[in-house]
Amino acid sequence: MSDLNVKIEGNAKSATQLNVNARQFSLVVDEPPVFGGTDNGANPVEYLLAAYAGCINVVAHLTARELGIEVKSMKIEISGDLNPAKFAGEPDAERAGFKNIDVEFNPESDASPELTQKWIKVIKERCPVNDNLANPTPLSFNLKEEMQTV
Amino acid sequence: MSDLNVKIEGNAKSATQLNVNARQFSLVVDEPPVFGGTDNGANPVEYLLAAYAGCINVVAHLTARELGIEVKSMKIEISGDLNPAKFAGEPDAERAGFKNIDVEFNPESDASPELTQKWIKVIKERCPVNDNLANPTPLSFNLKEEMQTV
Repeated sequence: MSDLNVKIEGNAKSATQLNVNARQFSLVVDEPPVFGGTDNGANPVEYLLAAYAGCINVVAHLTARELGIEVKSMKIEISGDLNPAKFAGEPDAERAGFKNIDVEFNPESDASPELTQKWIKVIKERCPVNDNLANPTPLSFNLKEEMQTV
Repeated sequence: MSDLNVKIEGNAKSATQLNVNARQFSLVVDEPPVFGGTDNGANPVEYLLAAYAGCINVVAHLTARELGIEVKSMKIEISGDLNPAKFAGEPDAERAGFKNIDVEFNPESDASPELTQKWIKVIKERCPVNDNLANPTPLSFNLKEEMQTV
């Protein structure tokens, strides 16, 4: 299979609000007032957890079909713990991002407990967002020169 | 600073569409038809890139103030390359997630080139989503027992 190139672009509406275009979709990312924002959308780390939950949903249904599991309903809750000290600029703070991310996977299906455990293993292996959270990803951060200065 | 607990919950509307609640916000994650979806929302990996862009926006403006940089506008484009083979179930495929994620950071500001480079370094250090993509994060995946079987 050939690579997919996935692309989004965002324009700052304010110091906290970013209006993002992803294909035909418009997403608003903001922060609540406690982080200086205007609360016009979910915040970046909520988007991150939503991405993970959405990915689990797709991969869980895809692999359920392969394993012969009938899914009647599925609920996915995700939480994570984050210390905002590094974000706020404290030099000796712990890591900036989530220290842990916890998924509560709640499918209503006809799978036996054994098959459900096998299913969960396959979901984790094949979910792209799970991979990008569990493992390091090379990031490049490039300055677009033409608008660097006013 | 004490930890923040961030939480979202999603309910499967279909095999590809997840309706997510994050505080008062409703987010729709889906897949385009090429991945069997109904295209009612951006897909999980687009949400992931939107999370990263939103995070860069917030941290860039916060740290600009600290560094005495005046920001007139900011545009952030992010792309990533992903091979869907592992997602699709090919056993010897490369990693499931993005192999690389590339940020084009396009601020219009009064910062010198030297200060801009310092600014970018601080943004990367203090952006929570940057940390969770660049570094491994412990993930726990738990089955909610009460609805395990029909």
